Amino acid sequence: MSLFEKNVVGVLGGGQLGRMLIEAANRLNIKVIVLDSENAPAKKIHAHGDHIAGKFTNKESIEELAKSCDVITVEIEHVNTYVLEGVSEKVMIEPSWRTIRTIQDKFLQKEHLRKHSIPVVPYREVRENTVEELAAIGEDLGYPFMLKSKTNAYDGRGNYPVRSKDDLGPSLDFLTDRPLYGEKWAPFKIELAVNVVQTKNGVLSFPTVETIHEDSICKLVYAPPRGVSSSIQKRAQELARKTVAAFEGKGVYGVEMFLLDDAAQTLLINEIAPRPHNSGHHTIESCGMSQYDAHLRAILDFPIPAKSLELRQPAVMLNILGGETRDSHLRITEAALSVPNASIHLYDKGDARPGRKMGHITVAGPTENAAQAAITPLIDLVDKLRAERSDIKTPSPAIAKPAPTVIVTMGSDSDIPVLVDGIKLLERFGIATEVNITSAHRTPDYMALYAAEAASQGVKVIIAAAGGAAHLPGMAASHTILPVIGVPVKPSKTDGMDSLLSIVQMPRGIPVATVGIDNGINAALLAARIVGTFDPAVAEALEEYIGGMEREVMAKSEKIKKIGWEEYLKQMKK
Amino acid sequence: MSLFEKNVVGVLGGGQLGRMLIEAANRLNIKVIVLDSENAPAKKIHAHGDHIAGKFTNKESIEELAKSCDVITVEIEHVNTYVLEGVSEKVMIEPSWRTIRTIQDKFLQKEHLRKHSIPVVPYREVRENTVEELAAIGEDLGYPFMLKSKTNAYDGRGNYPVRSKDDLGPSLDFLTDRPLYGEKWAPFKIELAVNVVQTKNGVLSFPTVETIHEDSICKLVYAPPRGVSSSIQKRAQELARKTVAAFEGKGVYGVEMFLLDDAAQTLLINEIAPRPHNSGHHTIESCGMSQYDAHLRAILDFPIPAKSLELRQPAVMLNILGGETRDSHLRITEAALSVPNASIHLYDKGDARPGRKMGHITVAGPTENAAQAAITPLIDLVDKLRAERSDIKTPSPAIAKPAPTVIVTMGSDSDIPVLVDGIKLLERFGIATEVNITSAHRTPDYMALYAAEAASQGVKVIIAAAGGAAHLPGMAASHTILPVIGVPVKPSKTDGMDSLLSIVQMPRGIPVATVGIDNGINAALLAARIVGTFDPAVAEALEEYIGGMEREVMAKSEKIKKIGWEEYLKQMKK
Repeated sequence: MSLFEKNVVGVLGGGQLGRMLIEAANRLNIKVIVLDSENAPAKKIHAHGDHIAGKFTNKESIEELAKSCDVITVEIEHVNTYVLEGVSEKVMIEPSWRTIRTIQDKFLQKEHLRKHSIPVVPYREVRENTVEELAAIGEDLGYPFMLKSKTNAYDGRGNYPVRSKDDLGPSLDFLTDRPLYGEKWAPFKIELAVNVVQTKNGVLSFPTVETIHEDSICKLVYAPPRGVSSSIQKRAQELARKTVAAFEGKGVYGVEMFLLDDAAQTLLINEIAPRPHNSGHHTIESCGMSQYDAHLRAILDFPIPAKSLELRQPAVMLNILGGETRDSHLRITEAALSVPNASIHLYDKGDARPGRKMGHITVAGPTENAAQAAITPLIDLVDKLRAERSDIKTPSPAIAKPAPTVIVTMGSDSDIPVLVDGIKLLERFGIATEVNITSAHRTPDYMALYAAEAASQGVKVIIAAAGGAAHLPGMAASHTILPVIGVPVKPSKTDGMDSLLSIVQMPRGIPVATVGIDNGINAALLAARIVGTFDPAVAEALEEYIGGMEREVMAKSEKIKKIGWEEYLKQMKK
Repeated sequence: MSLFEKNVVGVLGGGQLGRMLIEAANRLNIKVIVLDSENAPAKKIHAHGDHIAGKFTNKESIEELAKSCDVITVEIEHVNTYVLEGVSEKVMIEPSWRTIRTIQDKFLQKEHLRKHSIPVVPYREVRENTVEELAAIGEDLGYPFMLKSKTNAYDGRGNYPVRSKDDLGPSLDFLTDRPLYGEKWAPFKIELAVNVVQTKNGVLSFPTVETIHEDSICKLVYAPPRGVSSSIQKRAQELARKTVAAFEGKGVYGVEMFLLDDAAQTLLINEIAPRPHNSGHHTIESCGMSQYDAHLRAILDFPIPAKSLELRQPAVMLNILGGETRDSHLRITEAALSVPNASIHLYDKGDARPGRKMGHITVAGPTENAAQAAITPLIDLVDKLRAERSDIKTPSPAIAKPAPTVIVTMGSDSDIPVLVDGIKLLERFGIATEVNITSAHRTPDYMALYAAEAASQGVKVIIAAAGGAAHLPGMAASHTILPVIGVPVKPSKTDGMDSLLSIVQMPRGIPVATVGIDNGINAALLAARIVGTFDPAVAEALEEYIGGMEREVMAKSEKIKKIGWEEYLKQMKK
């Protein structure tokens, strides 16, 4: 039987996630029947008469959907799992209604994770919605803690931060009669997320990303995460896969977690979504396959090459939220039209409300710097528009400046004259450069840390200059997998052969790309050649530079032929 | 006024190009009204009641469309330009009806290009469809020549190759009463194409690509083109922009050209399309903006950042054509589901006919090798399915094997022992490597050519080994902008310092990344570190390798502590 038979997909919910799912389905000629209100965004890009108008919690509607589909999936977890259970004899439900039922109740979700030995933030059920009960929980978890609704909570709705005992009453007033639980405040360094794909054959994962939340809504996603080592990224993927393996049912899951600021760099699961997730929008541009394509393939048992889930290029995703005025989100969109490599996704949701997700923008680039620098003006605009909102009082935290692509480091500030021309050249080529001083001998730990963390900061090349017993380039190379360029600096008392040999004669296994003695400019040009292998703008700048050198020497040659060598020499001496 | 007002687009034709145009429009909340038959592929992904059912040549239908749109564009040039002219007072037509009228008649198109001093293949109008007239043209253009229909010719329909006088009669029979012209056979080395965007502010271009045609239908597109230098690629873009500037009207144009096999590397324009083009499908994945997004932005006067049109990663596009059986194209699609990084686009066209474009597949990758190697099995399958077709007799020409990513070269075959371990390591890391011998002194021209062409072949790094007056690495670096890694080889009569210094002490301007004497393995590791900056699979392999080295040394340390140094030494000597 062809894979392209028996593949009508029903989806509960037709918002932006359903819409992007259908974008992927359209490319594979897969029919999707959406159950949602008449003008749901997803329905608008998939024309056929079989969509069902209704609520995705409605029994009759779900039963009607079940009749025409081979498999039913969800773009939102707040669905009626009892109806899904009822139709599960007649139609495949992916992921399982059991999984959706567990996950849609955040307290049950936590209990389920704990049972499967998945590390989660400590939590306590609120058995009675009273101030006394909450006070006991506050005692237990410490302040601040998060009071959360077990159900129907998303994008910050249903959460209340309890900062002290004084907040206990107000928090109960805010969440009134909802079923509640308390969660310990996780002292996290950074929030990570992994999109996991559960298939009939096992569990795969997309790259680990960093998520930045504001007003409890996802604001930014960085792929890869900033300043997180590849080993932690891998650990996060493993944990996410293990987490999802604890649930039944195929498809993409969003797994959000905290990276704590402790010595062990602990990862704790925060929340799971049994569906494609905001943290995976970037995959449309940045991976070989989008999370939406992966979700469809998983629920339909189509093959998914693991390599397609890898990151093709660094990317940053920025959500477009509704603002104070009707057109706030359009101002962001208009600005995004002028941003290089910005892919704009509007959801055609109609009217904007403050904080409503109206679209998103993804910028991918050859380097972390390129992606981050390009999106910075849009983040500034988003922050400016948020500051106009009357419903919000707190300012947006500043976003760190874009990561450098090349680090130029030296063993001593006396080496800097050798490097100046090269640093200027890197700037002229538009390569983001950070200059620092790290001595292999006087700051061995700092040097090791610096080199070890460079790759996770988005750095692509390290230039290291040193003289005499010139260990810095080789030691830096021992702490990173990035190419390290060594510049031997001539000491005042020797001819520089000591520097050269101690840089170039590295043992088998750890290479240093060595340039000539005091030749900082060649180090910069070599760094540019390396960046130019994947960044066409830098390759072009190099070609212009080489053309310029050629013209310069040719002009000198013309001149010496014209005025004669004696006159040429005289002019040179001036 | 917001850019997002007054932006209803009408499009004549609702095939795959219209469909992909609507994919882009959906992401920008742009309403597109399609004029085509009821179930046209484009209409299926854009649900509203305002599409118009009818022929895009029908007067009433076009007039109806004009009433509801702000701008009308085309996805096919075979439209009724007289009706467009009639409605052009009421609605913008982009590109201009004049341009479409000129281009839809290939003879007029050629005349127009000639008038604007654009180099084209020599051609001759057929004034009377008689064998005598054709014989005179054959005399003039020489054999073989192409007999072409002036109008309604596409995907090979309307062309007849006249190989000798014997073909004159049959060619007339085949093309019967159509208006004809003859075109000289261009002895081209390669076919190139450039997608050009004409905006209100000027002309921009997407990257130059290589197109491979089979049975006069586009089969494959390589971005960048294989073995074409960046200067020729730039020249092709310039020519394409100049060509499009000779036409009136905004939007994307497809410009096809021949690169001749002559000393001047002449470029001749073959054909223009006043619309997005098959040669630009790859832009969806490989560029910062697709040709479809660019077309919409151009006709609506939205901004287009030039940088977004650059290539993000090398890519190969393969068309999925209908074959001998109803499911031939589905067999290709099913195979593509298992190909890493393969993005599949089906057009939902219903029944397949042999040669009908049913979809396409784009594979992007960190290197030319990655993209080419991944798609190779699909090309083989396409060729196999084509061989099953009863309407075709000729076999598919073989596609060259994928480009290498690293070249390892040496001045003399006596250097090879130094390089062997490194070559094996590159293979183990999955880095496609080509090994050759080029002597800077004995084959100076070959060496120069080799280095100069490496980048355009998809090579990212050159490793060059030499001994004594070791000029090969430095001279190779002088002919390329790729990073060149130099391996000094110890000659039999010296300690190798001559080799080292003649490699590392390069003048300012041309760097060589020098490793230790005879340290071929470090050269390979350095190449891997460079490739690892943009290829995550290689970065991962490097991390494993370094982990392995660490474990190996730690094990030795444990052993020497356990058995004592005397015993250790004894065992070492064995």
